[in-house]
Amino acid sequence: MQTPRIGFIGPGIMGKPMIHNLHRAGFSLAVFARRQAQVDELGLTDIQSYSSPSELASAVDIIISCVSDSSDVEEVLIGPSGVIHGIKPGTLVIDMSTISAEVTKRLASQLESKQASLLDAPVSGGEIGAINGNLSIMVGGSTTDFTRAAAIFAAMGENIVHVGDNGAGQIAKACNQILAAQTMNAVAEAYLLAQSANVDPAKVREALLGGFAYSRVLELHGQRMLDQNYKPGFKTHLHAKDLDIALDSAKANQIDLPGATLAADLLQRLLLQGDGELDSAAIAKIVGSG
Amino acid sequence: MQTPRIGFIGPGIMGKPMIHNLHRAGFSLAVFARRQAQVDELGLTDIQSYSSPSELASAVDIIISCVSDSSDVEEVLIGPSGVIHGIKPGTLVIDMSTISAEVTKRLASQLESKQASLLDAPVSGGEIGAINGNLSIMVGGSTTDFTRAAAIFAAMGENIVHVGDNGAGQIAKACNQILAAQTMNAVAEAYLLAQSANVDPAKVREALLGGFAYSRVLELHGQRMLDQNYKPGFKTHLHAKDLDIALDSAKANQIDLPGATLAADLLQRLLLQGDGELDSAAIAKIVGSG
Repeated sequence: MQTPRIGFIGPGIMGKPMIHNLHRAGFSLAVFARRQAQVDELGLTDIQSYSSPSELASAVDIIISCVSDSSDVEEVLIGPSGVIHGIKPGTLVIDMSTISAEVTKRLASQLESKQASLLDAPVSGGEIGAINGNLSIMVGGSTTDFTRAAAIFAAMGENIVHVGDNGAGQIAKACNQILAAQTMNAVAEAYLLAQSANVDPAKVREALLGGFAYSRVLELHGQRMLDQNYKPGFKTHLHAKDLDIALDSAKANQIDLPGATLAADLLQRLLLQGDGELDSAAIAKIVGSG
Repeated sequence: MQTPRIGFIGPGIMGKPMIHNLHRAGFSLAVFARRQAQVDELGLTDIQSYSSPSELASAVDIIISCVSDSSDVEEVLIGPSGVIHGIKPGTLVIDMSTISAEVTKRLASQLESKQASLLDAPVSGGEIGAINGNLSIMVGGSTTDFTRAAAIFAAMGENIVHVGDNGAGQIAKACNQILAAQTMNAVAEAYLLAQSANVDPAKVREALLGGFAYSRVLELHGQRMLDQNYKPGFKTHLHAKDLDIALDSAKANQIDLPGATLAADLLQRLLLQGDGELDSAAIAKIVGSG
């Protein structure tokens, strides 16, 4: 079997290091970017770039998309110059963006009409995880496609889980984002309680790291909050967008998530005061601000 | 310097294994229990028991109290037959109960009038942690007293942090309990979202354990929720009591903790439906129940 050629759509903050890791692993790559500068910044002269997603699609066997939200994925996959207009039968599309599970399922069935298939494969771990090749990858789709993509995922991530059918990867990511945001809020509330009682939050964190209240959020974001260091990391406006997706899914499935709604409201308030570019650990600026 | 003699008040579920670990470490021990059966159950024939906290206090150098709540601690320390009526000058009282920081500070100043001092030293880690001698111990009080108690703490715990002055240990414990409860609610909401979208929560947990959403609550209580195994562990009525203490402290310090309040309401609903004896991970029974 010949090595598949991969077409990558979206060499952004996450996409760029992911492309580098795929390149390092020996994959044959092509790329589409909205701006030529993004292609140049890759600094990889053996990667061909195409001027539209449909042209890219006609030249590769596997397509990876890694863009910002549902509408961007719809544009690159089914828009006027989208993948679907050039795609070859048997192509596998791996969407690593964080988008709605409902949109994912619609896209999968549209690709199916072209004898192509989709994996939703959103990631967690941020730019650092993308650079170090140890992203968590949450995958929805068929077992056949998951197996087909195994070597590709292994080049970019470490904790790679086949969660279920199409959309299940996105649901897992939504769960990840509501859990992370609520834990950040909980850490911020704990710090607020400590400060209000004239107790050093750094000492509280140290005491709590060894027990049942341990979380990576307490360890990593808890330290950011102490340092008031909100250089992203993962930006507030993206975390807010992800919670919107999660709450839309909750609504579509007729459930109420009051804790996630509270955390989403705090991120929205942070956005409204102009802090959308800060790391979402800046939720601590809002907690207790009345 | 002679080895101090320790008087232990409250050989209950937590106290019993703590006494065993102190005994194993070679400390000379005496005990007060409300019921003789608790003394007998210790099965340690070389431990003398006293019929009141005041009598115990007159016979020892260090007193450890480990009882249920603020009123119990007040009763054994300053009640009609309390420690304060028999205490020798220079005695150190170590209160390992989980109670209010405000009550702790009052008790400390009352003991001070008898030339005795107090450490608040609530623990995290449950019965298992008490048995294995790896409790987290959150300590409030003077550095001198913390140093004096170091070997005693080392016999019972592993993560031992001097958080600050009297009350600071209790504030750290309150932070621990609001963080744990909110994280449990967040895990339960994540599972609810997954289930509502026909996605396997066990797979979601697996995917999330490797990333930023990792917490010990997701690992331990998340597994309990999947198994619907609510054998305690840490009982709902005790966790609810601890959140009451945390929210009382918040109120006393004029702050609002909406996430902790939400989690406290869920635990109260669980109590009201008669599930107070279940592990507090049973919060998952309430989340999504309307």
